[in-house]
Amino acid sequence: MAHSYDVIVIGAGPAGYSAAIRCAQLGLHTLCLDRWRSGEQPALGGTCLNAGCIPSKALLESSQLYQTLQQQAAQHGILHDTLRLDLKQMMQRKEQIVSHLSRGISQLFRANKIDHLHGDATLHAEHHVHFMDANGHETTFQAEQVILAPGSVPTELENAKWLEQRIVNSAGALSWEQVPPRLGIIGAGAIGLELGSVWQRLGAKVTLLEAQDQFLTTTDRQIAQQAQRALQKQGLEIRLNARLLSCQAEPNDGIKLHYEDGEGKHVLTVDRVITAVGRQPNTDTLFSSEVDLQLDERGFIHVDRYCATSLPGIYAIGDVVRGPMLAHKGSAEGVMVAERIAGQQSELEYQHIPAVIYTQPEIAWVGQNEEQLKTSATPYKSGQFPFAANGRAKVMCESHGTVKILSHADSDRILGVHIIGPHASELIAQAVIAMEMEASCDDLTRMVFAHPSLSEALHEAALALDGRAIHLP
Amino acid sequence: MAHSYDVIVIGAGPAGYSAAIRCAQLGLHTLCLDRWRSGEQPALGGTCLNAGCIPSKALLESSQLYQTLQQQAAQHGILHDTLRLDLKQMMQRKEQIVSHLSRGISQLFRANKIDHLHGDATLHAEHHVHFMDANGHETTFQAEQVILAPGSVPTELENAKWLEQRIVNSAGALSWEQVPPRLGIIGAGAIGLELGSVWQRLGAKVTLLEAQDQFLTTTDRQIAQQAQRALQKQGLEIRLNARLLSCQAEPNDGIKLHYEDGEGKHVLTVDRVITAVGRQPNTDTLFSSEVDLQLDERGFIHVDRYCATSLPGIYAIGDVVRGPMLAHKGSAEGVMVAERIAGQQSELEYQHIPAVIYTQPEIAWVGQNEEQLKTSATPYKSGQFPFAANGRAKVMCESHGTVKILSHADSDRILGVHIIGPHASELIAQAVIAMEMEASCDDLTRMVFAHPSLSEALHEAALALDGRAIHLP
Repeated sequence: MAHSYDVIVIGAGPAGYSAAIRCAQLGLHTLCLDRWRSGEQPALGGTCLNAGCIPSKALLESSQLYQTLQQQAAQHGILHDTLRLDLKQMMQRKEQIVSHLSRGISQLFRANKIDHLHGDATLHAEHHVHFMDANGHETTFQAEQVILAPGSVPTELENAKWLEQRIVNSAGALSWEQVPPRLGIIGAGAIGLELGSVWQRLGAKVTLLEAQDQFLTTTDRQIAQQAQRALQKQGLEIRLNARLLSCQAEPNDGIKLHYEDGEGKHVLTVDRVITAVGRQPNTDTLFSSEVDLQLDERGFIHVDRYCATSLPGIYAIGDVVRGPMLAHKGSAEGVMVAERIAGQQSELEYQHIPAVIYTQPEIAWVGQNEEQLKTSATPYKSGQFPFAANGRAKVMCESHGTVKILSHADSDRILGVHIIGPHASELIAQAVIAMEMEASCDDLTRMVFAHPSLSEALHEAALALDGRAIHLP
Repeated sequence: MAHSYDVIVIGAGPAGYSAAIRCAQLGLHTLCLDRWRSGEQPALGGTCLNAGCIPSKALLESSQLYQTLQQQAAQHGILHDTLRLDLKQMMQRKEQIVSHLSRGISQLFRANKIDHLHGDATLHAEHHVHFMDANGHETTFQAEQVILAPGSVPTELENAKWLEQRIVNSAGALSWEQVPPRLGIIGAGAIGLELGSVWQRLGAKVTLLEAQDQFLTTTDRQIAQQAQRALQKQGLEIRLNARLLSCQAEPNDGIKLHYEDGEGKHVLTVDRVITAVGRQPNTDTLFSSEVDLQLDERGFIHVDRYCATSLPGIYAIGDVVRGPMLAHKGSAEGVMVAERIAGQQSELEYQHIPAVIYTQPEIAWVGQNEEQLKTSATPYKSGQFPFAANGRAKVMCESHGTVKILSHADSDRILGVHIIGPHASELIAQAVIAMEMEASCDDLTRMVFAHPSLSEALHEAALALDGRAIHLP
């Protein structure tokens, strides 16, 4: 007989571990199966913790400090001689943070009495899950409910196959032992820009080739244009409408990127390449052929708005289902599914999930942008405020950027907030709260924001929507 | 005949200039009279901009960078030789920011067609304002409405009179040309702690003498205790229950501070002293004896909740009236009064004005603390989350601190949020918005916060209130 649980969760990334913890909080006997390894060691936390959000932010933080020191310390009256970069130590700090947080999840599993095993899991009929550990031992588990949270993997390009340390995906680019003098990045989305920023700050000459003819297509156009200017000014070379033809690794360590744009064909020679052209759902070995799980044309598991799949008692969450591939979206789905399994009526407002790009300045938004409002013919008003007129931003030497707020022309209800600027990743939470509470833009104008703070820029943007900003001429 | 305006505003600090700008936006013919000078130059912006919030934050920013480089750069793999401090340059950066922002207010006045003059203003009967410029030229103005926003001045101690560069108030401590080896600060409130942090980071041995027997008496006790431990660990020596007896400036440059605490009398020898024991309303020459303006026993102008004084058509806002002496409270009052003069029914929710102390970690709160709820016998629940369990804080090497949220035990409505930790000054705005929108703590738990972000700590604190935090064992 199969070992039996109330719930089996496959995958221990943010979606999976959040689901498992919430299930356990609600009294469900829960097993979590995960196959991620860092080197030889099992490591909970999935891509986000081990090869995504967390290590990239660690390197963004360190590289930003390096750049601040080079470019701004003298302004502050802080003088130093030549700086030296100890990349090995920078990487070690990153790895220590990752392993600390990963161990934290193990502790949470223990504290919540969640069983967890490392190895490969496959869903079979009748809620059976076949499991094989690293030594090849097989077990079969069975549960009332199964939550699939296997995550996603970087998409490999046919014309730029990964090649050891030389042509890598987002995970590989977090562990180089040297700063590449010339770095080519295929894809100028969030991941390409964040990794490009890290290596550019550390000294690489970075060129991004982006097939789309617009920069950051899902971002509000005006914010995207400001971002493009700011990043180019920092030294990131962004080539739009640039379709990769081939990627040729020379024996002498150089790599030739052949690409085509509106002006013809070009060759770019670099030392390292990152492909950052998207991710695909990790469903290859997730279920056996006897399981008739409905997938969409791109391999995502089909779910309803509550993350129920086409099969009763089988749920799917995180990167394998529709919606943005964001850790916090996955976690929220995990909590929702756990609560629904426990009989609660939990829902998730997908319209109010924030998106962040951790460049400098940071870019963050929630809700609809101006282009979407125009497309849907929604009447709207717009208010904007530049960080250049914000005292705190001035004090921080980070006065590039804008807060933009969009509200419905009739009801004044906030429809979207778009920020480029310092700490946009934190400021956006104010917009999430306001929108979830169905605030009008006028509501925001009536609130008191601490002085001096960056948050005042949101207040002023709301005031500006009505011509009432105090600090705008 | 007197020159006539719709509105005269006396004072161009945040309260006064915000009032003047909002009046002008609403079509009122407005004059603003201000007497602040930086050196020989008139300078708009009042204490906040010229000798308070802004210059102190500029020095906090610079000194923090200096400390980060000394204490954390190596961890990040950034190696430098001995750092040298160019205090003159650090001060210049501060002064440039201040003068840039002050000129910004002049521009706003011009753009809004607000007349403004530099000199001394005195309110007389029948809404007449006597004005004398720096050359002794006198003019009389008259207006339908007068808004008094003269601000406040540091309180001088009888037993520690200011003495050139040696015994100074908060303004003087922003312009020293050398780092004092030993610095004594009388008063361990927000101002004392911020200035103490600046000079401690730059190398001073700082001792704060606080007469109260509790640290930060208006702050939630638990947060205050965490703050005390964190600041002491940084090297700030905080002596509570320490009443200053006398302050004796020696000819040889040392200063002897004689004080008494529960254990007896002590002498502390320092090189410089800052007195930071509070501020008093700046009303000495504000009105003539013929004006029967009602003051309270401490010299504050008596106003109703809409900032109307005892005299019709005369309003008072900012530091000269009840409530916290905070720039953003003054600005909000200025806007409210302007709008009420223009016939709008504007109000101000004083309960939801945030307070911030810009130490490291920052401390910020809004609403009621646990002690206040106990005193009023309000049934409440408490949720807490430590930044030590927050991924972004780990990445930033700033994982000290806590978010604490208090909600009503029956309605679950949020009653107070108390934060010590990185960027508390910005995170607190999330609490302000939630409380102004009458959110319950459960509402917050249903929202999606970007990962990784410090803001997730607020989400987790809300979840923790109900035993639902994901990242707490």
